[in-house]
Amino acid sequence: MDDVTEVVPHQHGYIHQKDDYLRRLRRIEGQARGLQRMVDEEQYCIDILTQVSAMTKALQSVALGLLDEHIAHCVVDAVREGGPEAEVKLKEASDAIARLVRS
Amino acid sequence: MDDVTEVVPHQHGYIHQKDDYLRRLRRIEGQARGLQRMVDEEQYCIDILTQVSAMTKALQSVALGLLDEHIAHCVVDAVREGGPEAEVKLKEASDAIARLVRS
Amino acid sequence: MDDVTEVVPHQHGYIHQKDDYLRRLRRIEGQARGLQRMVDEEQYCIDILTQVSAMTKALQSVALGLLDEHIAHCVVDAVREGGPEAEVKLKEASDAIARLVRS
Amino acid sequence: MDDVTEVVPHQHGYIHQKDDYLRRLRRIEGQARGLQRMVDEEQYCIDILTQVSAMTKALQSVALGLLDEHIAHCVVDAVREGGPEAEVKLKEASDAIARLVRS
Repeated sequence: MDDVTEVVPHQHGYIHQKDDYLRRLRRIEGQARGLQRMVDEEQYCIDILTQVSAMTKALQSVALGLLDEHIAHCVVDAVREGGPEAEVKLKEASDAIARLVRS
Repeated sequence: MDDVTEVVPHQHGYIHQKDDYLRRLRRIEGQARGLQRMVDEEQYCIDILTQVSAMTKALQSVALGLLDEHIAHCVVDAVREGGPEAEVKLKEASDAIARLVRS
Repeated sequence: MDDVTEVVPHQHGYIHQKDDYLRRLRRIEGQARGLQRMVDEEQYCIDILTQVSAMTKALQSVALGLLDEHIAHCVVDAVREGGPEAEVKLKEASDAIARLVRS
Repeated sequence: MDDVTEVVPHQHGYIHQKDDYLRRLRRIEGQARGLQRMVDEEQYCIDILTQVSAMTKALQSVALGLLDEHIAHCVVDAVREGGPEAEVKLKEASDAIARLVRS
């Protein structure tokens, strides 16, 4: 996690769960396609809304997972190193949490 | 559900905005693909979360639009016709609103 | 606000559950006082946040109940009477739903 | 929990904004009382819902402020000290964020 190579493809350190996030996002993409089909076929509106709620919950769950990893790695690392970067990271995380709570 | 016949293709009455909804849902599908690319490239977590919040807001907006149309057409029609169907439609709408508020 | 006279005290029609709503709102007021005590005593922040979440859910639940009653009575009555008032009521309900979903 | 001694009155470190939080919570308590009056007087349902949305936003704002302080102080201190306590604090914060996002 900390031995970033010169290629730097994994600079943000959540590679260990990357496949899991990609799989969940592909499913969410599939839900977006399913919604288009439902609208195109003019399926019952309440059924479409149920799907939208499920998709919103799946997205929220991805966001909460990414945020946890961000705090546990990026923010914690910045705090351990100290200096102004820690403040920046804490402010960024705070803003991201507020956006999630309010969206 | 999938075998919509040619005879009744517009049974739920929101055809007049169908293209608009389809366009918005295609954009949301594109956002889901964009998120996969961001995770795959391990872009900065906070940027990914910002995208998730934008996508959640877009989904919410679609849901609120569909719900409005549902109430203004299906529920209102059922109320005008009267009978037990009106109660069913009101209960369904109430449950859909609660799911949206809580998701 | 509406210069309620003794003659027409129940114009908005939710009197039959009024005591229930008042009881729930008194409990919510008590939660707000409990939060002040927790902050004043500098209790553990996570415990305070747990209380805030419980209070938010209680408020949401009151809002959803009031909205249901509003739709089932005011909006439905306006729809049955027809005319421009029905449109006004539907638009108002739609805006109230959007505020709840986004708050 | 309630028998905080005089010796350690400020153990959770947010005393510097305590007055601000108390003031905001008193205003929220006042909103809860205002809602009771509105329901008791059977004011227009949409106006009551508008007040509920305002109160929910005020509560959310208090929660986000407390969470920020908790992360910037309790969690950061635990991370600096290291050891298992840091993990515990991170998990607690993660759970609190999830409750806020989902409520």
